[in-house]
Amino acid sequence: MSREQVYNFSPGPSVLPESVLLRAQRELPDFAGCGMSVMEMSHRSKIFQAIFDETKEKFRQALGVPDTHEILFLQGGATLQFAMVPMNLLEGASADYAVTGNFSGKAAKEAAKYGAVRLAADTTATGHDRIPTQEELSLDPAAKYFYYCANNTIYGTEWQYVPETPSPLVCDMSSDILTRPVDVSKYALILAGAQKNMAPAGLTVVVIDRRLAGRELPITPEIMSYRTMIEKDSMHNTPPCWCIYMLGLVLDWLAEQGGIPAMEERKHARAQLLYDYLDESGLFIPHARPGSRSEMNVTFRTSSEELDAEFVKGAAARGLLNVKGHRITGGMRASLYNAMPMEGVEALLAYMKEFEVHHHV
Amino acid sequence: MSREQVYNFSPGPSVLPESVLLRAQRELPDFAGCGMSVMEMSHRSKIFQAIFDETKEKFRQALGVPDTHEILFLQGGATLQFAMVPMNLLEGASADYAVTGNFSGKAAKEAAKYGAVRLAADTTATGHDRIPTQEELSLDPAAKYFYYCANNTIYGTEWQYVPETPSPLVCDMSSDILTRPVDVSKYALILAGAQKNMAPAGLTVVVIDRRLAGRELPITPEIMSYRTMIEKDSMHNTPPCWCIYMLGLVLDWLAEQGGIPAMEERKHARAQLLYDYLDESGLFIPHARPGSRSEMNVTFRTSSEELDAEFVKGAAARGLLNVKGHRITGGMRASLYNAMPMEGVEALLAYMKEFEVHHHV
Repeated sequence: MSREQVYNFSPGPSVLPESVLLRAQRELPDFAGCGMSVMEMSHRSKIFQAIFDETKEKFRQALGVPDTHEILFLQGGATLQFAMVPMNLLEGASADYAVTGNFSGKAAKEAAKYGAVRLAADTTATGHDRIPTQEELSLDPAAKYFYYCANNTIYGTEWQYVPETPSPLVCDMSSDILTRPVDVSKYALILAGAQKNMAPAGLTVVVIDRRLAGRELPITPEIMSYRTMIEKDSMHNTPPCWCIYMLGLVLDWLAEQGGIPAMEERKHARAQLLYDYLDESGLFIPHARPGSRSEMNVTFRTSSEELDAEFVKGAAARGLLNVKGHRITGGMRASLYNAMPMEGVEALLAYMKEFEVHHHV
Repeated sequence: MSREQVYNFSPGPSVLPESVLLRAQRELPDFAGCGMSVMEMSHRSKIFQAIFDETKEKFRQALGVPDTHEILFLQGGATLQFAMVPMNLLEGASADYAVTGNFSGKAAKEAAKYGAVRLAADTTATGHDRIPTQEELSLDPAAKYFYYCANNTIYGTEWQYVPETPSPLVCDMSSDILTRPVDVSKYALILAGAQKNMAPAGLTVVVIDRRLAGRELPITPEIMSYRTMIEKDSMHNTPPCWCIYMLGLVLDWLAEQGGIPAMEERKHARAQLLYDYLDESGLFIPHARPGSRSEMNVTFRTSSEELDAEFVKGAAARGLLNVKGHRITGGMRASLYNAMPMEGVEALLAYMKEFEVHHHV
């Protein structure tokens, strides 16, 4: 079955590799001849346990997760983690938050319910158009942890270095996990909603240094205790089985493509194509400053909201879907996750050039 | 594509209608010719919003949810609701809990983190083999709510009446929602994990009287506030889109089959077939007492653990899958959700009879 050719630039949920979708389609009603769909399997059955274990192992291999760290498959998205992190790690004390966009701001606000939040950085004043430098970070040696969001989906900025901090590092990698090499041993905790680079919406992957478990506040729901989820291997209750299975298929595809090194190469190539043009364009204005630019979400606009709307409409008519910017920022955004083929970026670029020719002031 | 014929008696995740799986398979890579899978759609897109709205409306029609009540599509299963209910409704005061099985017990334990829990009933002493009568309930007029679990999946008991209580009714209907008519107006809140009668694991449906929103404790995570989720129409963050879509397909199937009245008729017929035989059998012993028996989960055993194990093994060899009882209870359990065809129950019954002939003491 071949699909109508569209390119889906959605910021998440977002494009999945077509070969993964076709494999899921084949396997959907009857997985490996067992007579059941993965969607029908008891999570306590041997057949599902094997899918679960293999997916976890593939993830461990792909990202290079050391044995010191546990991999958890949870629900509730990064948003539930905004509360789960402080409930488990803050111990009613203080943590450092770098607010560089919408989601790190939400995380900081949520953490303040459970202890003290210090702003280690805050780029609100300049519309979150850049990432602070290491020197600009205000760091508290007594902080229980330092929290940041590696890539700001809405504003299109991305941390291009790993901050050095006196306290344990906690990072929301929802929009760039599996797109670049990560030295996991530097992190106390990594969290990521699956719906951008990993799987359909409904799965959250957490990678946690086991030594951090067991510090949860008494008001922590049992299901939100990292300790419980580590002890129960993510099965304190029924996990999101289908999304875990889909993650396994995506990880197979990732390995076939050459793993994270190949993904990183494509990530650079895709983004460079757009930024090079944006820097030359007389019509389009990139939002993020050089040095802070996201390779996952390229944000730009024209000088007029009317032209922006015309651009988005014309893009959709050509099958270039979901290039409208977030309602907070307006403008345009092209999200270029792992499954976005270079042809999609080239098609978008061709349309941008054509649009500029017709609308150059 | 035809599947190997098995009957899946799993307590959840569990069997889905085959026609639903085949439709999902057809639509998987390219929904309605849009060039995208439902798994790839932005949850803020018009095309997904239509799926979301239609599914909600189908659910409202199927269960007969009045306009006073909101329908929420959440994550985290019933287990997250064990904390979310008291965080939102307890106000630090006291609530009545009827503990008639494992999950109501867990719910009561979780609620005690956020206020006082009174046991309105507790059937632990007799191994949760029955449901208390209305007269046996110890009710506190000052309770913020009365909580019960309509069907105990592990023990195989089911409330066959709606308790009359001075405080608002909160009910976990995870294992019998959409299997019998419910007068929703009697309930302040209904919660149900989807993975038994509704959809794949990863979706929780909550039906809530809007007047109860806005009472959450200050330590409630934003995503766990019913008020927030009502205001954001379940989209405070990315919802579990694929599971919501699958629920829509199941609801279409349910309507084609004759809706809840047809489901209830089949529910009675399936369970009666097994209970009639269990009451006559000289080998098998039913767990639940008459008057309290679940029509969703029929629990039974022989007098020996070795025979139980032999029965389970022989069943699997015939494609009668997942009839092993829960690890807490041992014995056997046949889960008979909406999608279990009568032929499955007949095949199980035939095997039970044959087994009894060969093993009658």
